[in-house]
Amino acid sequence: MTELSTGGGIGYRRVATEEAFAPAEMLEHYVKLLRNGSGDKGFDSLWGFYLESQAQRPRDVRRRLADLGDERLSDMDATGIDHQVLALTSPGTQILDTATARSIAALANDAAAQAVRDHPTRFSALAAVALQDPESAVAELERAVTKLGLRGLIVNSHVHGEYLDDPKFWPVLEAAERLDVPVYLHPNTPTNRMIEPLLEAGLDGAVFGFAVETSTHLLRLITAGVFDRFPRLKLVVGHLGEALPFWLYRLDYMHTATVRAQRYEVLKPLQRKISDYFRSNIWVTTSGMAWEPAILFCRDVLGADRVLYAMDYPYQYAPDEVRAQDGLSISLDERRQFFETTATELFGISL
Amino acid sequence: MTELSTGGGIGYRRVATEEAFAPAEMLEHYVKLLRNGSGDKGFDSLWGFYLESQAQRPRDVRRRLADLGDERLSDMDATGIDHQVLALTSPGTQILDTATARSIAALANDAAAQAVRDHPTRFSALAAVALQDPESAVAELERAVTKLGLRGLIVNSHVHGEYLDDPKFWPVLEAAERLDVPVYLHPNTPTNRMIEPLLEAGLDGAVFGFAVETSTHLLRLITAGVFDRFPRLKLVVGHLGEALPFWLYRLDYMHTATVRAQRYEVLKPLQRKISDYFRSNIWVTTSGMAWEPAILFCRDVLGADRVLYAMDYPYQYAPDEVRAQDGLSISLDERRQFFETTATELFGISL
Repeated sequence: MTELSTGGGIGYRRVATEEAFAPAEMLEHYVKLLRNGSGDKGFDSLWGFYLESQAQRPRDVRRRLADLGDERLSDMDATGIDHQVLALTSPGTQILDTATARSIAALANDAAAQAVRDHPTRFSALAAVALQDPESAVAELERAVTKLGLRGLIVNSHVHGEYLDDPKFWPVLEAAERLDVPVYLHPNTPTNRMIEPLLEAGLDGAVFGFAVETSTHLLRLITAGVFDRFPRLKLVVGHLGEALPFWLYRLDYMHTATVRAQRYEVLKPLQRKISDYFRSNIWVTTSGMAWEPAILFCRDVLGADRVLYAMDYPYQYAPDEVRAQDGLSISLDERRQFFETTATELFGISL
Repeated sequence: MTELSTGGGIGYRRVATEEAFAPAEMLEHYVKLLRNGSGDKGFDSLWGFYLESQAQRPRDVRRRLADLGDERLSDMDATGIDHQVLALTSPGTQILDTATARSIAALANDAAAQAVRDHPTRFSALAAVALQDPESAVAELERAVTKLGLRGLIVNSHVHGEYLDDPKFWPVLEAAERLDVPVYLHPNTPTNRMIEPLLEAGLDGAVFGFAVETSTHLLRLITAGVFDRFPRLKLVVGHLGEALPFWLYRLDYMHTATVRAQRYEVLKPLQRKISDYFRSNIWVTTSGMAWEPAILFCRDVLGADRVLYAMDYPYQYAPDEVRAQDGLSISLDERRQFFETTATELFGISL
């Protein structure tokens, strides 16, 4: 059994790549939205729970989300996490009105940048933007990357029910490609147009709704030709790719058959197979999926260099899951790649 | 390379377990529904394509669906399929009005039973029922199994937008358990309440919408406690379990956490973990998933006795996919289990 200690004495450092935070100012807006009616059924379900439940897990989550200092560092030490890639928790700015989204994005990026300055070996961070206003989003992403030193863009899935395959969002993707920083496509609850059969069964959240929403979003991005248009765009997806790696054969087969039959005006030929983009433009992290069979499956079908570690702190703060991944049946060199070097290269992190 | 011949000379017979047919009378009703407006967006998309497209694949599919004789047997011979388990194609009776559904179910069961009598070693069949009227569905299932010799029940996912976790459908599940025949949960396009973000992107059909719909349905059945109520119920799911095997770890973790926090009134504790039901009550077939990595993954995490062959004729009539599965890296005994004996035991088939 490896020790849950930091510092690389076990042969690698652990870089956790899907680690959430939430400025108190944003949570105050969430409280207001819950009180006034957000118009988003998934938000009401998710944040009604995390902000109002008195159960232990949601209480721990909301306290830990707001901290970028001692408690977080102590939790990282206790579970052997050398470095967290911070990202604004879901849905981040994407549930807010445009003006509020702009100000919260800037505030969150400034707060994350401060944490990085305070603890440069322990934290790096992704930028939040107001996707509701793509022009300002491009400007904020540029500011966050070039002035604040942030290392990518967090996209918490849909934006008031819209997906990033809509070309109005493409300037943001173009900016990420130009700045050479990855886009992390993180789950949110499904849009009002998909959520009801999940919500009424209590399945709209992380248990399954996140997967439905995010896999749909990712597949829309691919089939809309985003990677043909932006061939150097890097996309990171949690939860081992939201199960799309499991579907690669069928996606290739049925997408090809459907395009050939010209069944849909909207479904145009792609330059490559769907599975090819997973092996060139997409990385998957193990957030929420600390399970050897699924991790090794993804390494097998995507490539070992496509799969990297994430904890999903504070939602899944589980030392046993670090141990499970320390114990993967791969070599020490492969564990270093999995826990450390794929992440440091992808996000441009110096430990 | 094994030969694509029937008769077991290669050491096993190939039993294909998700093989579709459609009586001409049902397709005539589908034509009428398309003309008059079915009220179901997924049906209009799916059957508008298969009944109206002039592309080669849909033309082949609709001709082959209607045949239970020479062309089908010839296709089976050409691809080495010894035996097909026939099922009424999706959405079967489930898009029809109740009276029409009852008459088409009886007609389909009589037609399937005739094909089985004509070619008892080549065909067995699942029963269709009118789930819109659960009482008649129980009676028709009993007739089909006890009088006609059919070997299970086909459920083409939702019934006018309703799922079988609704207790009004449970008498049908109780009858399947009592008659000791499996229920095959087959995909359909998602309900109107889920389909829009998939449909507008051309992703509502077999390429991905089927997976969203059927995985949601299956998870609702499990979390509603269907297998606690009917512990000897056998459920068969195609497409390697609609990716839920990939999610088992996360489903167990998040379902447990959500139930413990009492987040939803509707989400009650289960007697066992979600993954346990996959290893006791659920079988998965390889329809549409002729891909070694995903097949071996499912054998690994569910058990080798839980994974069985299906072609998905005539939708995925592909000799290469038979060869791919003949070539699985498993022993001859395991191939016999995979292609033949799991199916003959599960469905009670005599070859």
